[in-house]
Amino acid sequence: MGSAFAQLLADSGNEVCLVGTHLDREIIDNLLADGIHPGLKVKLPKKVRVYFIEDLERILDDRVRMIVFGVNSAGVHWAVERIGPILQAPVPILMLTKGLAIQRNTINILPSIVAEELGRYDLNAIPVGAVGGPCIAGELAARRDTSVVIAHSDVELLDRLLKFVDAPYYHVRGSTDLIGVEACAALKNFYTLAVGYAAGELKKNGAASNGALMHNLAAGLFTQALAEINCFVKFLGGRSATVFGLPGAGDLYVTCQAGRNGRMGKLLGSGLLYREAKSQHMPDDTIEGAELALCIGKTLKQLIENKKIDGNAIPLAASIVNAICDNQPLQIPWHQFYRH
Amino acid sequence: MGSAFAQLLADSGNEVCLVGTHLDREIIDNLLADGIHPGLKVKLPKKVRVYFIEDLERILDDRVRMIVFGVNSAGVHWAVERIGPILQAPVPILMLTKGLAIQRNTINILPSIVAEELGRYDLNAIPVGAVGGPCIAGELAARRDTSVVIAHSDVELLDRLLKFVDAPYYHVRGSTDLIGVEACAALKNFYTLAVGYAAGELKKNGAASNGALMHNLAAGLFTQALAEINCFVKFLGGRSATVFGLPGAGDLYVTCQAGRNGRMGKLLGSGLLYREAKSQHMPDDTIEGAELALCIGKTLKQLIENKKIDGNAIPLAASIVNAICDNQPLQIPWHQFYRH
Repeated sequence: MGSAFAQLLADSGNEVCLVGTHLDREIIDNLLADGIHPGLKVKLPKKVRVYFIEDLERILDDRVRMIVFGVNSAGVHWAVERIGPILQAPVPILMLTKGLAIQRNTINILPSIVAEELGRYDLNAIPVGAVGGPCIAGELAARRDTSVVIAHSDVELLDRLLKFVDAPYYHVRGSTDLIGVEACAALKNFYTLAVGYAAGELKKNGAASNGALMHNLAAGLFTQALAEINCFVKFLGGRSATVFGLPGAGDLYVTCQAGRNGRMGKLLGSGLLYREAKSQHMPDDTIEGAELALCIGKTLKQLIENKKIDGNAIPLAASIVNAICDNQPLQIPWHQFYRH
Repeated sequence: MGSAFAQLLADSGNEVCLVGTHLDREIIDNLLADGIHPGLKVKLPKKVRVYFIEDLERILDDRVRMIVFGVNSAGVHWAVERIGPILQAPVPILMLTKGLAIQRNTINILPSIVAEELGRYDLNAIPVGAVGGPCIAGELAARRDTSVVIAHSDVELLDRLLKFVDAPYYHVRGSTDLIGVEACAALKNFYTLAVGYAAGELKKNGAASNGALMHNLAAGLFTQALAEINCFVKFLGGRSATVFGLPGAGDLYVTCQAGRNGRMGKLLGSGLLYREAKSQHMPDDTIEGAELALCIGKTLKQLIENKKIDGNAIPLAASIVNAICDNQPLQIPWHQFYRH
């Protein structure tokens, strides 16, 4: 996603430096050789200059107007530790990384955690924003029509960030609901595990004798997922309008159509337990939704027990946590649905 | 859908009389012969007794506790004219028929129109309710998990209606937002024409050289559709919670996965004009979304002109109306999206 976004920034008229992590050496080697990104399978424009991580200090000078984080959620702390000691001024950061994490026994969004961690480097008030909405990286890289939301809690900075992206295939709007955008971006992966259940149940039971599939089931799960994302977003302090717009409904829709989380959901729906599904079928894949369950599962149970979150409002979340954290069969708690 | 619902009512312990219209003689003949519904391809349970329309007067006696309308929207007036002169008492009516129609130069929901028309037969205050949510008839007929909302503006009657349906595969909740439920049920067909556009554009242009498809595009259109349905529902006097629940998001989701409206949208996205698409590819199909456009198109334009509806909030609706009513190419007005 970082590389696709780098191309977008170049298409928008910016000079872009794309810096790989230590895990991206092969990608960077490829890009330096012929400009072709081996994952995205596109040739990046020449205006995207490509660097190894060792070049970071040299690149991060006072001409830098924006830093974009394209690492995965496990790499965020690493990225902060690289950038913190080097950065001279509070350059705005835009995070493509989606995530929720545990902080002081509750759930927080990654941009807040990053902003706080950067504060330790005498870089107070580094403004951290985020991108949400339905955006498969390969499609963005192919310059196919993509609709997103860029979020920042500061309106003036939001306007500045929006000016960096201006390409005909990128349909962008701004939002000040950073919490809602980030929470939706993380939770859509988690809930796609459950929507994917329908495809697995269908695989297990087959089409009915009259040819009927299980679209009704998938749509019911999709709707419950959306309602529960709304509960989470309200708990975290975000806005419902975000849930029912591109960051929530739009991103959940696209994630249910394709990708690893849906594939894992299908495996769970077909009757496999999480650990066997992972080890037998997707050993080398990062399943973001499952990673999130493992990260927040225990704290979520405590928050429900302590009545900080209304467990009745998120029965599907509890089922997903049981399936991933406790390796239980994924159950669909129908009798607890559609109450809100 | 009427026959699938009849089976559900029988499964729920009710005695059910299924009455065909004059257009359903072949279906009724089949059902009387061996119980198999030729469209749904299931054998209906014996507790569903099957009748020709000529039997209606004999059946509609004082033991009838609920009447369910399963005709299509074009058949609603016909059904009222059949039932009005016979009905002795104000038996509650539940409409499976989805629709909006023009009444006194504005848009109204079908249940209100039916209630008003029945008023002419000295049957004042016939309570008309509706069913919404993601429900493909063939899946309901195969007893696959299905989630719906039954809507009635009167809470007490709603409780009575809900008691008629009780089957393990039918996950139902009640709503008093009859307007919202009915408007969503009609509009999801209309907007699926636009979401289907993405599949047509993909067919026209093919996968990108890196294999990228057009899921981002489809998700963007899905989200805009949801936002515009919300505008319509608010204009008509319904509630946003309905739009973002089973009747709106859930039903739009399922309709985008399968069915005639999506197929027509795909034809439009591939570059065909509506009239050639219809005559060349779907001459015998009823495209409910296109029928709705033809029904409300002219009035909708007037409502926008007279500033009764904010045209800026529903740019995709205007594009669909142009495509269907004026046989123009379906345009995606990106620059007008995501304002609300």
